[in-house]
Amino acid sequence: MRLLVVNPNTSDSVTQRVAAQAGRVARPGTEIIAVTGSFGARVITTRSEQAVAEHATLDALAQHADGCDAVVLAVSFDTALRAAREMLPIPVVGITEAALLTACMLGTRIGVVVFGRRMLPMYQEVAQLHGLGARIGGWRALTDTSPYNLGADQNAVEESIIGAVADLVDLDQCEAVVLAGAVMAGVPERLQARVTVPLLDGVACAVAQAELLVRLGRPKATSGSLAALPRRDVVALSAALQARFDPQPSLPPPP
Amino acid sequence: MRLLVVNPNTSDSVTQRVAAQAGRVARPGTEIIAVTGSFGARVITTRSEQAVAEHATLDALAQHADGCDAVVLAVSFDTALRAAREMLPIPVVGITEAALLTACMLGTRIGVVVFGRRMLPMYQEVAQLHGLGARIGGWRALTDTSPYNLGADQNAVEESIIGAVADLVDLDQCEAVVLAGAVMAGVPERLQARVTVPLLDGVACAVAQAELLVRLGRPKATSGSLAALPRRDVVALSAALQARFDPQPSLPPPP
Amino acid sequence: MRLLVVNPNTSDSVTQRVAAQAGRVARPGTEIIAVTGSFGARVITTRSEQAVAEHATLDALAQHADGCDAVVLAVSFDTALRAAREMLPIPVVGITEAALLTACMLGTRIGVVVFGRRMLPMYQEVAQLHGLGARIGGWRALTDTSPYNLGADQNAVEESIIGAVADLVDLDQCEAVVLAGAVMAGVPERLQARVTVPLLDGVACAVAQAELLVRLGRPKATSGSLAALPRRDVVALSAALQARFDPQPSLPPPP
Amino acid sequence: MRLLVVNPNTSDSVTQRVAAQAGRVARPGTEIIAVTGSFGARVITTRSEQAVAEHATLDALAQHADGCDAVVLAVSFDTALRAAREMLPIPVVGITEAALLTACMLGTRIGVVVFGRRMLPMYQEVAQLHGLGARIGGWRALTDTSPYNLGADQNAVEESIIGAVADLVDLDQCEAVVLAGAVMAGVPERLQARVTVPLLDGVACAVAQAELLVRLGRPKATSGSLAALPRRDVVALSAALQARFDPQPSLPPPP
Amino acid sequence: MRLLVVNPNTSDSVTQRVAAQAGRVARPGTEIIAVTGSFGARVITTRSEQAVAEHATLDALAQHADGCDAVVLAVSFDTALRAAREMLPIPVVGITEAALLTACMLGTRIGVVVFGRRMLPMYQEVAQLHGLGARIGGWRALTDTSPYNLGADQNAVEESIIGAVADLVDLDQCEAVVLAGAVMAGVPERLQARVTVPLLDGVACAVAQAELLVRLGRPKATSGSLAALPRRDVVALSAALQARFDPQPSLPPPP
Amino acid sequence: MRLLVVNPNTSDSVTQRVAAQAGRVARPGTEIIAVTGSFGARVITTRSEQAVAEHATLDALAQHADGCDAVVLAVSFDTALRAAREMLPIPVVGITEAALLTACMLGTRIGVVVFGRRMLPMYQEVAQLHGLGARIGGWRALTDTSPYNLGADQNAVEESIIGAVADLVDLDQCEAVVLAGAVMAGVPERLQARVTVPLLDGVACAVAQAELLVRLGRPKATSGSLAALPRRDVVALSAALQARFDPQPSLPPPP
Repeated sequence: MRLLVVNPNTSDSVTQRVAAQAGRVARPGTEIIAVTGSFGARVITTRSEQAVAEHATLDALAQHADGCDAVVLAVSFDTALRAAREMLPIPVVGITEAALLTACMLGTRIGVVVFGRRMLPMYQEVAQLHGLGARIGGWRALTDTSPYNLGADQNAVEESIIGAVADLVDLDQCEAVVLAGAVMAGVPERLQARVTVPLLDGVACAVAQAELLVRLGRPKATSGSLAALPRRDVVALSAALQARFDPQPSLPPPP
Repeated sequence: MRLLVVNPNTSDSVTQRVAAQAGRVARPGTEIIAVTGSFGARVITTRSEQAVAEHATLDALAQHADGCDAVVLAVSFDTALRAAREMLPIPVVGITEAALLTACMLGTRIGVVVFGRRMLPMYQEVAQLHGLGARIGGWRALTDTSPYNLGADQNAVEESIIGAVADLVDLDQCEAVVLAGAVMAGVPERLQARVTVPLLDGVACAVAQAELLVRLGRPKATSGSLAALPRRDVVALSAALQARFDPQPSLPPPP
Repeated sequence: MRLLVVNPNTSDSVTQRVAAQAGRVARPGTEIIAVTGSFGARVITTRSEQAVAEHATLDALAQHADGCDAVVLAVSFDTALRAAREMLPIPVVGITEAALLTACMLGTRIGVVVFGRRMLPMYQEVAQLHGLGARIGGWRALTDTSPYNLGADQNAVEESIIGAVADLVDLDQCEAVVLAGAVMAGVPERLQARVTVPLLDGVACAVAQAELLVRLGRPKATSGSLAALPRRDVVALSAALQARFDPQPSLPPPP
Repeated sequence: MRLLVVNPNTSDSVTQRVAAQAGRVARPGTEIIAVTGSFGARVITTRSEQAVAEHATLDALAQHADGCDAVVLAVSFDTALRAAREMLPIPVVGITEAALLTACMLGTRIGVVVFGRRMLPMYQEVAQLHGLGARIGGWRALTDTSPYNLGADQNAVEESIIGAVADLVDLDQCEAVVLAGAVMAGVPERLQARVTVPLLDGVACAVAQAELLVRLGRPKATSGSLAALPRRDVVALSAALQARFDPQPSLPPPP
Repeated sequence: MRLLVVNPNTSDSVTQRVAAQAGRVARPGTEIIAVTGSFGARVITTRSEQAVAEHATLDALAQHADGCDAVVLAVSFDTALRAAREMLPIPVVGITEAALLTACMLGTRIGVVVFGRRMLPMYQEVAQLHGLGARIGGWRALTDTSPYNLGADQNAVEESIIGAVADLVDLDQCEAVVLAGAVMAGVPERLQARVTVPLLDGVACAVAQAELLVRLGRPKATSGSLAALPRRDVVALSAALQARFDPQPSLPPPP
Repeated sequence: MRLLVVNPNTSDSVTQRVAAQAGRVARPGTEIIAVTGSFGARVITTRSEQAVAEHATLDALAQHADGCDAVVLAVSFDTALRAAREMLPIPVVGITEAALLTACMLGTRIGVVVFGRRMLPMYQEVAQLHGLGARIGGWRALTDTSPYNLGADQNAVEESIIGAVADLVDLDQCEAVVLAGAVMAGVPERLQARVTVPLLDGVACAVAQAELLVRLGRPKATSGSLAALPRRDVVALSAALQARFDPQPSLPPPP
């Protein structure tokens, strides 16, 4: 199967990192196609960048999804997740969604570690939208490290992660912990031995869940808010994205 | 004061309709500046169009907000509302948010009438994000009429609205009803006499709430997820939007 | 318009303070009529005083509401708010309700600062009744100062408020803070420059929201639990209040 | 033990009915003292009457509670329940609270039958305040019968109750049903044989729960919002009620 | 009346302790029959022991319930509570359920003290199942003492309880506190004078609530998930338990 | 990998059916070991049978789990799920849990079809325990068919399922539907073409999720309520189950 991994952050270096980790966790027959967003933030850390990325994600999907069997959105806010499920005929999985759902099978209360205190409400809104707020036992935001620089200062970052996990276990009784963010791909493997609860990152969980959905083979809904796009009148989009709304464009532009 | 009304639907006709109604309800000293989105759907009715409009809304705001005192987002999904609050130094109000908050002062259980059964989950997600789910007593989706054609078949549409309101009152004990959608601007005035509970439309409420916020004069937060954008590295955006992230761009493009 | 401000606390000094602040924030055409409750607590700080004030509030409204366009209940427990909406044909706004609803447009998580640790559950019940519990990010009760003496020891009180707001921002990620209590009228203006999030007091918000509702001009519901009082058989009330239940009393007293 | 039953409805006939039923269900050693409110509605059916009754309930308690061991509030909105717990040193039980809590031990989902469609939101607010919303499986409001006239048209009323219970069982999977209202005292016994789930009325449950609390003998809290009233400055109350706030009044009236 | 107290912990010493306390709080006419589980854990402290005890509880009830008027399940996880209500024709009360429901009448926010940090999630699931999560203001797990050894080190345990209650009052604004666990029977009486809020233990509350339900005399539901067991085909159970499913067994064993 | 499928229903025929379907959906390298409970109900349809099955499930696991890589609990109430996660060192997945979590990635509101109206509250408690109540859009209980007889009257059952799914889509806006029950294994494939939303059965989802968890390779928690059983003192269990609590039993039986 061909698995499209979309990184709407416009940073090839993160994409490569994610692609490498996705390749490590994918099953033998899975081919990873990793693409980077073509406009917007190099690293999404604000609401405004996230709003732009809603569009950029769909745009990247419109260009690259043909011929693929499933999609992983490698952005921790699960940007455009439900829109992508509507636009595409194949399964789409968000990395934070996948990590949270997988964690539900490994622990009772789930802890979440995020980078960037400012982004904490954005992550909480994601969990709320997924209807999983009742399973979250605690949040920890690591404020003084940048995920973008993770490679540069790996030891200090990892110590802060370990401290956050210990707090979630000791103070908030969490029994599984999600490390949110595409840059966390591969980190659980390195740190697992030093903590007492299962650690999960989104990329590994999402790749596995996408493979699972492909294998299950359920068809896309033909009713409801995720049904295929009807023919819609849109303007000034990229040709690939325009084609998703209007396979054979013929309407004049709006007045 | 100058009030920017942004319609991210790329339909000037809806913008004109909204602007006219906004002008009617605004206080004497309020000047309405109405602008239309420059890319995306003529009328947003799907999740994918909504995702594109997140970007288009910010883009329109970036171009037109300077010199304004407040913003009304004239799109019923409150598209990009929190991002706009982050990006701009002035108050921003969403029309559905404003109608729901205003309705809270007029009734206990609030009913909501929307156009398009397919869009119902999208509206419910908006109410949930606003934390107002506990106040909503019922929803009714009018499925067989298009809001875009409201003018063309006004009588039938209005009868269906009146029927939906009656159902919300009789079956769901609603005590105030919101008519969701920018195209509902002005409709409550025409139909109010035929129903037993207050009717509210988003445009009127949002214009009034925006005026209120300007008058209150509270400053924007300097901490948290709505604080002013830090300098961010973004690529391939319109010049106006790029400038919001990076007032004096100097970084090279990402690799 | 004429705006009736009712202070069910039986303290003229607080009423005068509230009236002055209401006058400062009201629009030019708004006339403030401020009245004080005629029985019950000088300053409501217990559940029992609040129960008495439910009656006292209606009694004051019955005497003074005629000829007014809207009402502000200047008591932080929003005492008798829904009853007043039932009894009167004009809009009624509670100060805590108004502050919370307004704060919803300025921040995501809302913090609340109250005076009196003992009263904290009462405030939480108010927020719960309004269905806004999901928006409250944190509470802080200032225990060692009396709101009644606010003028006497202003500096210490204000320092404690600033500390509470900082805690709400730093520990609970609040992005807007409500200072609960009629005596907080005007305090946000003095302290705003020293905190990082918008501060709101109930009197200013309620005056503005009442003006907004009058301008919107929605009629009162004629169905549901807020519809006009039917003719009811009541005994031993003040003449003014009795008249609200029974415009032309003719029934004999109950056995 | 001496059990004070307070009916804040100013109708001696209802008080007598309630007292008779309370006497039937009370244990042998329990003496019932039933009192009627001295001002307000003969039968509370509106929010405004309920607001007045908050005061009237405390007033009646202030006059009659001395020498009693516990109190039952025989009003289905549990009027002034928490205030009474604060004001008095003895246990206080509300009839709707008692019925709901007792029903929790007899079924999973609890149905509630109320009289008066207009009052339904008031009852729902009571259940919400008690934190029992998650246990309520359904509500039914009987609209065309008056509880006050229950004796006059007993058969028709009882048929409508039986129909409502059947609906709650069949459509909403309720497994126990509360008949709300002081006038429902004794009705479950008459109708139980005709329905498939346990029927509960508030008076019987409240009398029994009050006896239970007296027997348990837990002391009143000395901290928190239910602790004994501190000395408070109140004006223009009945002598009995005034004395609850200020055992030895000596302060001058407020300015 | 005859009240069966079942301790599914297989420890006669705990059963005796519970029986003694039950006898002290029961009304004069109540005869206590206390039985111990015949298989499983001596003291249930893990999920696995709790799962076994679901069966052991029913088994003990099947053997001993005939001739009794009501049942108290003397195990703090309210093990098999709803199954027992289904299987038996008489009222069944769980000790934690009874303590929480009773506490609802004595305070607003309820605190809970449990033994064993590991068991905390199990207790929280019990409160959630009872739909009382909204009433719980705080939890404290005493980690360094074993309830089984309570007698041996009584002073230290009691100091830790008093500290936990003080924390619940001071930090979490709790107004009544439940001491969870059958071994807490009688502890509230000893410690009550040293804390500021009512203390409740499950055994006392459950005995009293069981007596109350017997007195109320509501019949068991004949519909829903608690209705009497239909004839069921079960295998390899004790004769007593088998007989509850199949009064006159005649079916051949399954293939 | 070796996947243990435990059917705590004591019906080999259902076990064989489940095993066959599990084999069809498992990946090539997965070996299915299917075992049947050794005591309790042939088909669990009541709370009492479910309580017994809590024990029976652990007993079967204790006997058969050694040498396996993961477990699927093939019982729709996810019986003993959390206890099994505690007792065993390998991943354990419940079929209803797995179906609900998988459905979360395919639709917004999830519908659930169950067999047996009486069992509906039991299923709702399962969804609540999993913290997924907010995602469930509707329930339908098929009352007049027995899942045990599914093979005998397949057409009628399948028509009723299709009708229930259509109702969930049309009336409750569900976008994915779970068919609850081990006997539903394989049914989605047969009916999918006749409905408009993805259908999911628990066995297929659980087998796939168990394979996923094995591949992810996260270790079991060493803290919290799911950590390995400490040495516990238990009596009168099967040797295999006893050994899980006490690898080298040496304690004397309890008094």
